[in-house]
Amino acid sequence: MVRVGVVASSGYIGGELLRLLLQHPQVDLTVATSRSYAGEYVFRVHPNLRGVTNLTFTEFNQGTLTEKADLVFTALPHGESVKYIPQLAKTGLKIVDMSADFRLKDPSKYKSWYGFDHPSPDLLRKFVYAIPEINREEVRGATLVSSPGCMAITSILALAPLLKQSSFPIDAEHIVVDAKIGSSGAGGKPSLSTHFSERYNVVRPYKPAGHRHSAEIEQVLSGLAGEEVKVSMSAHAVNMVRGILCTCHLFSSGSPQPLEIWKAYRSMYDGSYFVRIVRDKKGPFRLPDPKIVIGSNFCDVGFEQEGRTGRVVALGATDNLIKGAAGNAIQSMNLMLGLDERAGLNYAPLHPV
Amino acid sequence: MVRVGVVASSGYIGGELLRLLLQHPQVDLTVATSRSYAGEYVFRVHPNLRGVTNLTFTEFNQGTLTEKADLVFTALPHGESVKYIPQLAKTGLKIVDMSADFRLKDPSKYKSWYGFDHPSPDLLRKFVYAIPEINREEVRGATLVSSPGCMAITSILALAPLLKQSSFPIDAEHIVVDAKIGSSGAGGKPSLSTHFSERYNVVRPYKPAGHRHSAEIEQVLSGLAGEEVKVSMSAHAVNMVRGILCTCHLFSSGSPQPLEIWKAYRSMYDGSYFVRIVRDKKGPFRLPDPKIVIGSNFCDVGFEQEGRTGRVVALGATDNLIKGAAGNAIQSMNLMLGLDERAGLNYAPLHPV
Amino acid sequence: MVRVGVVASSGYIGGELLRLLLQHPQVDLTVATSRSYAGEYVFRVHPNLRGVTNLTFTEFNQGTLTEKADLVFTALPHGESVKYIPQLAKTGLKIVDMSADFRLKDPSKYKSWYGFDHPSPDLLRKFVYAIPEINREEVRGATLVSSPGCMAITSILALAPLLKQSSFPIDAEHIVVDAKIGSSGAGGKPSLSTHFSERYNVVRPYKPAGHRHSAEIEQVLSGLAGEEVKVSMSAHAVNMVRGILCTCHLFSSGSPQPLEIWKAYRSMYDGSYFVRIVRDKKGPFRLPDPKIVIGSNFCDVGFEQEGRTGRVVALGATDNLIKGAAGNAIQSMNLMLGLDERAGLNYAPLHPV
Amino acid sequence: MVRVGVVASSGYIGGELLRLLLQHPQVDLTVATSRSYAGEYVFRVHPNLRGVTNLTFTEFNQGTLTEKADLVFTALPHGESVKYIPQLAKTGLKIVDMSADFRLKDPSKYKSWYGFDHPSPDLLRKFVYAIPEINREEVRGATLVSSPGCMAITSILALAPLLKQSSFPIDAEHIVVDAKIGSSGAGGKPSLSTHFSERYNVVRPYKPAGHRHSAEIEQVLSGLAGEEVKVSMSAHAVNMVRGILCTCHLFSSGSPQPLEIWKAYRSMYDGSYFVRIVRDKKGPFRLPDPKIVIGSNFCDVGFEQEGRTGRVVALGATDNLIKGAAGNAIQSMNLMLGLDERAGLNYAPLHPV
Repeated sequence: MVRVGVVASSGYIGGELLRLLLQHPQVDLTVATSRSYAGEYVFRVHPNLRGVTNLTFTEFNQGTLTEKADLVFTALPHGESVKYIPQLAKTGLKIVDMSADFRLKDPSKYKSWYGFDHPSPDLLRKFVYAIPEINREEVRGATLVSSPGCMAITSILALAPLLKQSSFPIDAEHIVVDAKIGSSGAGGKPSLSTHFSERYNVVRPYKPAGHRHSAEIEQVLSGLAGEEVKVSMSAHAVNMVRGILCTCHLFSSGSPQPLEIWKAYRSMYDGSYFVRIVRDKKGPFRLPDPKIVIGSNFCDVGFEQEGRTGRVVALGATDNLIKGAAGNAIQSMNLMLGLDERAGLNYAPLHPV
Repeated sequence: MVRVGVVASSGYIGGELLRLLLQHPQVDLTVATSRSYAGEYVFRVHPNLRGVTNLTFTEFNQGTLTEKADLVFTALPHGESVKYIPQLAKTGLKIVDMSADFRLKDPSKYKSWYGFDHPSPDLLRKFVYAIPEINREEVRGATLVSSPGCMAITSILALAPLLKQSSFPIDAEHIVVDAKIGSSGAGGKPSLSTHFSERYNVVRPYKPAGHRHSAEIEQVLSGLAGEEVKVSMSAHAVNMVRGILCTCHLFSSGSPQPLEIWKAYRSMYDGSYFVRIVRDKKGPFRLPDPKIVIGSNFCDVGFEQEGRTGRVVALGATDNLIKGAAGNAIQSMNLMLGLDERAGLNYAPLHPV
Repeated sequence: MVRVGVVASSGYIGGELLRLLLQHPQVDLTVATSRSYAGEYVFRVHPNLRGVTNLTFTEFNQGTLTEKADLVFTALPHGESVKYIPQLAKTGLKIVDMSADFRLKDPSKYKSWYGFDHPSPDLLRKFVYAIPEINREEVRGATLVSSPGCMAITSILALAPLLKQSSFPIDAEHIVVDAKIGSSGAGGKPSLSTHFSERYNVVRPYKPAGHRHSAEIEQVLSGLAGEEVKVSMSAHAVNMVRGILCTCHLFSSGSPQPLEIWKAYRSMYDGSYFVRIVRDKKGPFRLPDPKIVIGSNFCDVGFEQEGRTGRVVALGATDNLIKGAAGNAIQSMNLMLGLDERAGLNYAPLHPV
Repeated sequence: MVRVGVVASSGYIGGELLRLLLQHPQVDLTVATSRSYAGEYVFRVHPNLRGVTNLTFTEFNQGTLTEKADLVFTALPHGESVKYIPQLAKTGLKIVDMSADFRLKDPSKYKSWYGFDHPSPDLLRKFVYAIPEINREEVRGATLVSSPGCMAITSILALAPLLKQSSFPIDAEHIVVDAKIGSSGAGGKPSLSTHFSERYNVVRPYKPAGHRHSAEIEQVLSGLAGEEVKVSMSAHAVNMVRGILCTCHLFSSGSPQPLEIWKAYRSMYDGSYFVRIVRDKKGPFRLPDPKIVIGSNFCDVGFEQEGRTGRVVALGATDNLIKGAAGNAIQSMNLMLGLDERAGLNYAPLHPV
């Protein structure tokens, strides 16, 4: 059994880490910290866990963590992780960080995208940006891992096969990612824009341009493509709690045929259990749809091709809290620890839900 | 490993049985029959199971079932089970039937509630009506089990402690069960009333009086109360897919105090992992709410008391496809087979979803 | 043109009053007050009114109101109206109050239900509790009107014909009102329980016993029945924004036939355009359902009868912000001013929505 | 009063035409035809109209139409209108056709996009493709009008100002329209993909490439731009009934400033009441969102600009059944008949809903 702690575990991603770790056959969940709820039962904040655990939240304490845990997940807000992790990393603890603070390799990008000078540029090099289906071998053996968010994971997995292949050219300047996301992606803090009466039935373009996660998506895709890639993202809030669909619009002068595109996906995701290629001829679910992955660590990917305009539409769908967050992080943990990659994540999606 | 088959597995309850059985550590799912989809991959009908199983549906065949399975679940429609089960039961196969055809002990009730003369009244006596929290010992060791539906399970679990106790009298003539149910309870067959545009946002009183499941609820509650109980049910379709809440209104001349009521629940459900008593002082989930059990086999129960009118409001919430159907059936199977009651059902609910 | 002001118009009921009054052919909306938003454009708070009005909110000022308005709606919170209205009433302004502060005739009930001694018991007698379909003549000619909330209006309109008739007896001690309400009934203020991720998909029994509106419902129904009536209410939050369904369970020893019940409804609501009796044999909307009244001032009522238990189920459905609040108040205003009762309210519901 | 008929009025667009025409102050609705429901009360099919009209559906009959109506709306399916309209047009009746059959000017496009040879190419020239905000003068005085669908209207109104202006160049080859649509756009016919349990919570890319409406959008935009424009459309079904958001991604080498873009919108829509430019600094509704137009004939448009990638994101939101269908058609009728453009359409949106 591996002893695991979760730092800042009162939010939705923290709660999902707790839920999955409590059910993980090789994990002993020993610590769950929360500044606001220290002393409270975990199930008072995550009411689904009533009857499942009698764990209580504790204050963050580095000594306790190093004593009680072999690996910690840090689910701190962006800008906070960077304050705690340099110290924590020195203790030798394995760390999986959920924030954006260790995702970008180029420190100067923190200035332009996040507005601060990164205080630990050296640590950036030591963190592995982990999406196992993209860089499995790098994650295996890593000690410090940065686990991305749902928009990055979902769009990268949808786009990677197209950018990595070389049989038809992709216009790297005009890649549009149009994302549709459920409310849980916005976290658990009430506000007017998340007030049910104001949020129900919306299709709200909450970040149509300049989305920060473009930076990490470009970083990964540029690496795969071997050239600089620009990603034009737009994020929309839609009327559901869980799930994200990324519709990625690419242009190619090469008029690729569906079979060629199909091969690119197959060759990339062969052996990756959690990526399903969905491209059916009948039924309501012929292409990726978040509805069909809810409750699971699957990322469904698929595509359509439009000869007339030279466009390829690449689609990715995940449960934003699982494969888009906690599940991807635990999958990375499994690799870091030499466990079966699927351990504790082997859930079929719920349907209908 | 127990070899298990599911008859008529293309519907929502059938799909949920397949999903749970495929993940059950002591089950080998060997047969899934469907008249309409024989020859098709299971995942074409249950798209969540893509990548999870390559099983195909087969036609119903008694010989195959007895050869390949030790126990079968039959998810046939009401009125159909009764045609197949008498033969099937003779083979010695253990059977868990999901229909209403073997739920009522008194054969004459089939005439009045379902409009047909029951052809196998002797078999009715052999079937155990199974809600493990109500009659665990009877289920253990049973060979033929009838597993009830979500309305019966949820309202019985909410009401049982009040009717079984003897410290304050319940007015057995005026018990109202007002149920609110998600769409999955109506099955997978399209119709105008389940067409999304017509079904979204409804609070539709689809069966405000004369609901057939009253009969079995009265049967169980009368047994617990030691007197004849009348249940006045009303069923409403609400705007969600999974989940049921039963609000049960009872009257007592005894003005019971909350602590007395609490004790009745505690003493009844002590040792029953899947029933959680929910009665909190703060937070959004102070009382049972189906939102908090989705994806799990929990039934949450709770109550409020109103001195002015002598009313007790008993509440029950389940995921209608799990504890309200497939989960309760598998829990019963576990008992029948001498397995851990929680085997294959040990999922924390998803939240938020 | 009548000059109208709305006090405390930044909430959902206030916004609905503004929307309807702006479109009322005989109304000139002159004042909209809001403590929090004074100086802001109305359309910044009620974004639907962008392009519809350039009105700005102002601070409450009695002088301005008496100068600019002939009639005012007060949409202050319970407990606040009672502070402003005694002064306002002295000016001779016609007033329609939306709060509970002038609904109960017996001052002592404010102590037991609302926890305060009513400071203006004499004014209670002067206010007319207005549901035009119940007491049209009283409202016509009134100067001071108290307009009830959605739970009272909807359940009273569903129950009134049964309590007023004398051909079969109703058990006045065991009347259950089980209400299902959309989120807009809870107002516009964010909180954890209204946070989208926590509120979506719920069936939340937020007030299963002891609901304050029982008092006014009992007051009206007792008047109609000529005997003291007890109402046992339970309120549930369901997954939608607009709409309320009240399922009312009554018992009668007289085994009334459907035709008798039908006649009670017909004779009561003959000539009341805004009450539709819904009791169809086919289609998805055979009985009242809030979905079918959204955007309109209709209250749909209907019933089912259950001989076995002696129960009658009476159903009422309204758009909680229109017939359940602002529409009922404007309908009352029309009567007070001698206008056509339907003026400014003559909207067909939207379908589907 | 103008006498108006609606052909094929049992669908959702037909129902919305009926609802709006019944409330139109200068319209006398005389005929509503339906092949399937002839003889039935209109309110049995459109349950919202119960109590609003006692009209019954009749069979289509050209003689009746010419006798009883001055203008007819034809809401026949694509491919059906073209069979009836040539005869109907000869009678001199004014016609507003809702189908795609008279939208494209170039007859050869019907072959490539719709798969049939257009039988009346001469009539194509006589029909005016009507979006009043784009070609108001042409619509005024027209006898034969083709009223587009929600995807065309919404994306054209969002994009038109950018393509018509000349101060910064738009890359006409890489225009992406990513549409998110409620279920009512798919009509009223039940199917597995519209079955509530299968349709709830989806983000379903139902037509990610090759959408037929691209043809008419390109026709209009090319006309405005003075060069050939290519539109790459993707359509998604989202979890709501009414509303559409079109997110349009364009690229410009000119790095236009927000103020320049703003001017393009202002100059184009000055004097167009039903187009609101939404671009706020605070509040939940800073940009177009279908939630804020429901129940109204408004089309909200807005934009964001992204210097880094040279992208402009243009946004459009409508109630797909009103400004996206029936409302646009009635607005066109008003112009054809010399009525006030806003007559019968002057509804503020509902909020919240």
